[in-house]
Amino acid sequence: MKRIAFALVAAAALAGAVVTTAPVSGQSDGEAAPIYGIKLPQGYRDWRLISVSELAGGKSDNTALVGARMALEQLRAQLGNDIAIQAFRDGKLPFPDGAMIAALHWKEVSSDENDKILAVGFPGAGLRSSVPQSAVNVQFMVKDAKKYAATGGWGFADFTGGKPGSEALHKTCFPCHQPAKDRDFVFTRYAPTP
Amino acid sequence: MKRIAFALVAAAALAGAVVTTAPVSGQSDGEAAPIYGIKLPQGYRDWRLISVSELAGGKSDNTALVGARMALEQLRAQLGNDIAIQAFRDGKLPFPDGAMIAALHWKEVSSDENDKILAVGFPGAGLRSSVPQSAVNVQFMVKDAKKYAATGGWGFADFTGGKPGSEALHKTCFPCHQPAKDRDFVFTRYAPTP
Repeated sequence: MKRIAFALVAAAALAGAVVTTAPVSGQSDGEAAPIYGIKLPQGYRDWRLISVSELAGGKSDNTALVGARMALEQLRAQLGNDIAIQAFRDGKLPFPDGAMIAALHWKEVSSDENDKILAVGFPGAGLRSSVPQSAVNVQFMVKDAKKYAATGGWGFADFTGGKPGSEALHKTCFPCHQPAKDRDFVFTRYAPTP
Repeated sequence: MKRIAFALVAAAALAGAVVTTAPVSGQSDGEAAPIYGIKLPQGYRDWRLISVSELAGGKSDNTALVGARMALEQLRAQLGNDIAIQAFRDGKLPFPDGAMIAALHWKEVSSDENDKILAVGFPGAGLRSSVPQSAVNVQFMVKDAKKYAATGGWGFADFTGGKPGSEALHKTCFPCHQPAKDRDFVFTRYAPTP
């Protein structure tokens, strides 16, 4: 039962991803996320790039996840503050106190305007461009080995439209990150510099 | 004929994307890109995030584009220096002199390790995570209205493994960007802040 409840809350957390949310300014309204007490960090949009990713799904009969669109599709960027970026570049584990990682999630859509241009520049290649349509949510990991000793030294926070998610949602963060224990609970790897 | 030649060069430019290239340090070797004379800008990996995107293709009989993998798949990030980021945020067009935009391209692969974790956290959702496997190339737009008056005020540069691409390749940049003339030849839109 516990596992089913966890899965339902986790599914509900992702379900928001199939709803179009309006872009927000990134300004904190001062409300702290439950459990960990983390407020929306100011200026995180200026942090440096760790990596990018895509999350896609929908081969499922789980109606909580499959909304108006045929599938969940997100483009994602992971940014780090100076301490986090330095640790990634140095391959330093565990991350030092003060490291903060932001995961920015956007609803992904096909770009018709890009596709038209690609069809002219690269005829016959069938190229398709996907871009962010709207902001979905942003999630943070904040390192404080003492304060968050019970959760691997990390505090977790999730914000949608500047508002923190529920306590039930935040209870799912650490269990989901546990499989990455040998990388200090961080899934994202630093993307190579082209 | 001219159009076919252009398409072939453009296809060759993209073809590199299906070959796995080794990550490079991002250090310039001092060699300037042809036509525009732009050297690999130092520190571009520290610029701030404009947006992210995905490029996919391969529904094609164009063997130059369809390599060992079944399709071309790239995750991409667009970064801007301070002048470019400010212009994006202010909605300022044309971009002021000194604006620089970097487009970082990675070969995209499925992340089996992420997918296994997602299957536990979100059972039945069929979630798939894609991440950068290796660096492909990086492209730049550098604004100098006088110096690059003949190409919309922009200089273009493409580097793979720190080495600039050919003159033929660089001849394709501006024609391909012309459809975005009403946005000062820049395709990328600033991604909303979640």
